[in-house]
Amino acid sequence: MIIILKKNANEQKVNQLIEQLKAKGLEIHESQGVQTRLLGLVGDTTQVDIENIQANEVVDQVRRIQEPYKKANRTFHPADTVIEIAGRKIGGGHFQVIAGPCSVESEAQIIEVARAVKASGAGLLRGGAFKPRTSPYSFQGLRADGLELLRKARKATGLPIVTELMNTTHIPLFEDVDVVQVGARNMQNFELLKELGHTKKTVLLKRGLSNTLEELLMSAEYIMAGGNENVILCERGIRTFETSMRNTLDISAVPMLRRLTHLPIVIDPSHAAGMSWMVESLSMAAIAAGADGLMIEVHNSPETALSDGAQSLTPAQFDALMKKVKKTVEFFGKTMD
Amino acid sequence: MIIILKKNANEQKVNQLIEQLKAKGLEIHESQGVQTRLLGLVGDTTQVDIENIQANEVVDQVRRIQEPYKKANRTFHPADTVIEIAGRKIGGGHFQVIAGPCSVESEAQIIEVARAVKASGAGLLRGGAFKPRTSPYSFQGLRADGLELLRKARKATGLPIVTELMNTTHIPLFEDVDVVQVGARNMQNFELLKELGHTKKTVLLKRGLSNTLEELLMSAEYIMAGGNENVILCERGIRTFETSMRNTLDISAVPMLRRLTHLPIVIDPSHAAGMSWMVESLSMAAIAAGADGLMIEVHNSPETALSDGAQSLTPAQFDALMKKVKKTVEFFGKTMD
Amino acid sequence: MIIILKKNANEQKVNQLIEQLKAKGLEIHESQGVQTRLLGLVGDTTQVDIENIQANEVVDQVRRIQEPYKKANRTFHPADTVIEIAGRKIGGGHFQVIAGPCSVESEAQIIEVARAVKASGAGLLRGGAFKPRTSPYSFQGLRADGLELLRKARKATGLPIVTELMNTTHIPLFEDVDVVQVGARNMQNFELLKELGHTKKTVLLKRGLSNTLEELLMSAEYIMAGGNENVILCERGIRTFETSMRNTLDISAVPMLRRLTHLPIVIDPSHAAGMSWMVESLSMAAIAAGADGLMIEVHNSPETALSDGAQSLTPAQFDALMKKVKKTVEFFGKTMD
Amino acid sequence: MIIILKKNANEQKVNQLIEQLKAKGLEIHESQGVQTRLLGLVGDTTQVDIENIQANEVVDQVRRIQEPYKKANRTFHPADTVIEIAGRKIGGGHFQVIAGPCSVESEAQIIEVARAVKASGAGLLRGGAFKPRTSPYSFQGLRADGLELLRKARKATGLPIVTELMNTTHIPLFEDVDVVQVGARNMQNFELLKELGHTKKTVLLKRGLSNTLEELLMSAEYIMAGGNENVILCERGIRTFETSMRNTLDISAVPMLRRLTHLPIVIDPSHAAGMSWMVESLSMAAIAAGADGLMIEVHNSPETALSDGAQSLTPAQFDALMKKVKKTVEFFGKTMD
Repeated sequence: MIIILKKNANEQKVNQLIEQLKAKGLEIHESQGVQTRLLGLVGDTTQVDIENIQANEVVDQVRRIQEPYKKANRTFHPADTVIEIAGRKIGGGHFQVIAGPCSVESEAQIIEVARAVKASGAGLLRGGAFKPRTSPYSFQGLRADGLELLRKARKATGLPIVTELMNTTHIPLFEDVDVVQVGARNMQNFELLKELGHTKKTVLLKRGLSNTLEELLMSAEYIMAGGNENVILCERGIRTFETSMRNTLDISAVPMLRRLTHLPIVIDPSHAAGMSWMVESLSMAAIAAGADGLMIEVHNSPETALSDGAQSLTPAQFDALMKKVKKTVEFFGKTMD
Repeated sequence: MIIILKKNANEQKVNQLIEQLKAKGLEIHESQGVQTRLLGLVGDTTQVDIENIQANEVVDQVRRIQEPYKKANRTFHPADTVIEIAGRKIGGGHFQVIAGPCSVESEAQIIEVARAVKASGAGLLRGGAFKPRTSPYSFQGLRADGLELLRKARKATGLPIVTELMNTTHIPLFEDVDVVQVGARNMQNFELLKELGHTKKTVLLKRGLSNTLEELLMSAEYIMAGGNENVILCERGIRTFETSMRNTLDISAVPMLRRLTHLPIVIDPSHAAGMSWMVESLSMAAIAAGADGLMIEVHNSPETALSDGAQSLTPAQFDALMKKVKKTVEFFGKTMD
Repeated sequence: MIIILKKNANEQKVNQLIEQLKAKGLEIHESQGVQTRLLGLVGDTTQVDIENIQANEVVDQVRRIQEPYKKANRTFHPADTVIEIAGRKIGGGHFQVIAGPCSVESEAQIIEVARAVKASGAGLLRGGAFKPRTSPYSFQGLRADGLELLRKARKATGLPIVTELMNTTHIPLFEDVDVVQVGARNMQNFELLKELGHTKKTVLLKRGLSNTLEELLMSAEYIMAGGNENVILCERGIRTFETSMRNTLDISAVPMLRRLTHLPIVIDPSHAAGMSWMVESLSMAAIAAGADGLMIEVHNSPETALSDGAQSLTPAQFDALMKKVKKTVEFFGKTMD
Repeated sequence: MIIILKKNANEQKVNQLIEQLKAKGLEIHESQGVQTRLLGLVGDTTQVDIENIQANEVVDQVRRIQEPYKKANRTFHPADTVIEIAGRKIGGGHFQVIAGPCSVESEAQIIEVARAVKASGAGLLRGGAFKPRTSPYSFQGLRADGLELLRKARKATGLPIVTELMNTTHIPLFEDVDVVQVGARNMQNFELLKELGHTKKTVLLKRGLSNTLEELLMSAEYIMAGGNENVILCERGIRTFETSMRNTLDISAVPMLRRLTHLPIVIDPSHAAGMSWMVESLSMAAIAAGADGLMIEVHNSPETALSDGAQSLTPAQFDALMKKVKKTVEFFGKTMD
């Protein structure tokens, strides 16, 4: 971290600031130019609050040099993290497809979809039991009953299950869920992240609609700082000025996250596009950009889906897509196993 | 709601859709033009899921005509809502200033600030006990102890207290808090909103960093749908491409919300700007645009604040600001009482 | 400017970089910390291309300390610039209202509107002759004939005229125009800016839909670098994710520009809102935030306007607004003369 | 287009509006529901100004059903447009790579780069002669001399040349340029677009930093409406809140534009990323998403480049990339010829 001091800063106040920083275990290197006087901070600056320093009257600017996250940082963990979920590996060359309906609606529905996506080659089953809906008047999910139906679908197919958690009080209900999803709207629900840090559950952490990649990594850091390093990152489209699609898929997030972190990266083209016809080309782009997996919405009857019908593939469409996904993953040198 | 059907839509499928909609208690009016065939939906369309309909293969587009919120909608409640908090009124011509530190740090700090802001004319005391911080390594607030200190400050000054709730499990701790704040990052924490809907607490609901005004109103609707109509809306800056300030204050939100809803509207210039020197002009703009209140960060020692120091006013700066606020509120025809 | 070198950077390459920078007349101050090695650049860094330096393999990061603009920079010109247009002053406590139709449509229309806005107290007349329209099928303005009608309106009322220039080839036609407007879509039409720098015309420079304030000031710098320092800046709403209004008025731009530059700042609430009913509260906010002027669309018959009817005030609405504007400008300590 | 009338709209005013619309050659279909009364407009609505209608006091909302562009619209031209440039085809299964330096700097530089990119398989040479730079103090390009050097490079290699036009007055200088580029900052320089519509030059039209896809197509329509249908669209990254990269590549623009228009679509990963190491994965994503071409910056010495060094590949890096590009284009079923 570099602190640029104001011209003619009060010497006594500068010394107070230096003492204050030293008290945090940091070494301070001063540098005096003609126009600017700098303080270079050496040590673990993740605990230094930039805003605090910016509030100091002798300070002109503060610039971070190191990323504010450690456990998620590739600098300190150069090798790709490979996460194993009920025998399926993701990361480090291993590619997984997570598929299933937006919402679990009935036993027949979830089992039918689970069987179909398994037959097409999906490695994990998704399905929402607790649903974050913009409107209080929309279907809110089957909640605990939905989790029960997911367990039945897992039993019927052997597919591990991925489902969203919205509240710390529900954690006990998720005891045997294979992957706990934290949704985009809860990416900065820090109380939830902290609690998940105290579990050993694999967490699929979705990027918020307007959160930077650094903020996404800081949210991963919340979970990891608690002791749980099983975090999968998911880009699902960001909010921009463009109105012709639901969200803008930030495909550059794949190479950028790859550089910044060792954690696996999944793309959700269904939410990014909001329209089923766009899922195929975004899936191809995701694989080509280097993603470790895809998360795709599949519904046996999109027209009567209780949520997100417009972006769901039918099982037949998903089957056709998977044929292309398999060939493309292989072309780009990854394995689906 | 208007549904525009595709050209050459299958007649049988159209009839199925019509029956499906009628089953929800809606009346359907068909209109056949040369190029387009429309279905007009009459009745309570808040329960119709647009995405569902968009997934139907006979549907080209769906357009909402009515807002998807009811209880927050000015159309159905033309008069301004006036909320009373321990004798202070806000809304309908009544203006309030909420002031205090970002975080409660110690008994001495919160009582000193409380006394100062009261002396300058603030109507309510703010202070964070549970703090949502981007980094897990930053100060996370004094939590339950912070609430206790706020109670002491209230006792010492008589000012009602406003403080942020981050988790449903903490609701019992907030029993005697006067105004419960829902922060920007939790604006779409729907589980939290639902639970607050079952209390009678006044809720100060902050707009999320990239949430539309309609989404803000839908989040208010979550609380109101549960039976709690004591909601104050707060605009605190949105996230845009501009980098010279922390956030972009959406001043137009004031007249737009005024038109759409009957709820009181508060502006938080401190978070919008992120820099204390900008607070005055944004406060003036907020009053001029028609806001019902301001929420301002004040700290007795911004340089050593444990959070948000850069945007906090000193008590002396706040006192100077309040002199202008009072005159300006009066000039624009509102009262502070 | 500070250059942060990579760890283990090749010494010979670092020396080459230092020599390259010295050749531009800069002094270089080295600073060696434990983790980081910095180069501080002292001198006129406006001519240093950050991207160039970032491309150097020994460079980790480059951070600017000084703003990249000089002539527009308040640091070097502490006093407010006051611009005088046919006897009307703007800036430094002088407030002006520019009003008129989006497009000049006919002699009768422009003269009627000009007389009305003058009677209500406007200081300048606006009116578009060359119109930048999103669609090639929309009305493109009366072009040279429109300029002629503006001259007639000026003659009839004495109001100086403000009108948009879209192409360097049209500059001769604008010979006797009082204020040349550069529209949002041409804010980075650098060829146009350069040519205007060689004239002595007062330029009203509108901020682009998604341009930062620094970019706006760099565009002003283009004009000023050519020798023409008569630049008025205009904030007219930026493009964000919010869809309930045409643009988001960036009210914080007023205090931020005030701090960064000495140039006058005008707000255009009509384009920001896109809806006439919102113009009044945004105008009040603009005055309260410290703007030096307003630019407001007024049309004698908004419903039949050839462009931007939805955001135009009628002369009667404008007259009512001006009564409030005058009182508010006075309240905030500026003069309209 | 559908007009939703206000409740209790004045009948006489409604009839005036209907007559006004009929006078434009439109048929009007009325539809009366219980809550809403609609007017459906049938005919060529590209000439109807939505804002105009919205300004009418009897109108509640106006909704477009058809796209406001015709010549660029796939509905009216179902087959892909294939453009041929000096024997190279682009579109309809034909893929092209345009490569070269950001700026033409010297004869030696442009010829060296041209030879290198040709040897690696590029089909066209790019190079900036007129440069749009944010700062007036940055290198502005060699201008007419740069065009001359491009001609020499074309003669030396046979590669057709692509270069940016910034001003209508320069059109004569571009007489024998193969592809005229309109840069992002000039995407809505409508005077420039109109003039290009009167030439027969192939135009590479870059999307503006915050322009919607509809606006991009409307700008293409400007050129096409003038009689020049040789337009290639280029996505080069949009401006969002994300700060870790220069721009956000909108990869979804590829399938969306593919659906909306018949024109060829090129991706510029260099400007999208702003960093050379990211170009490869974005190029792969672009091909996978279905783009018809790539535009890539290559410089023989990025560290001393006069512009955009940080995002330029060296010839060796470009050669390695092209080996992957060729295999990937083939894998996705397109040809480079």
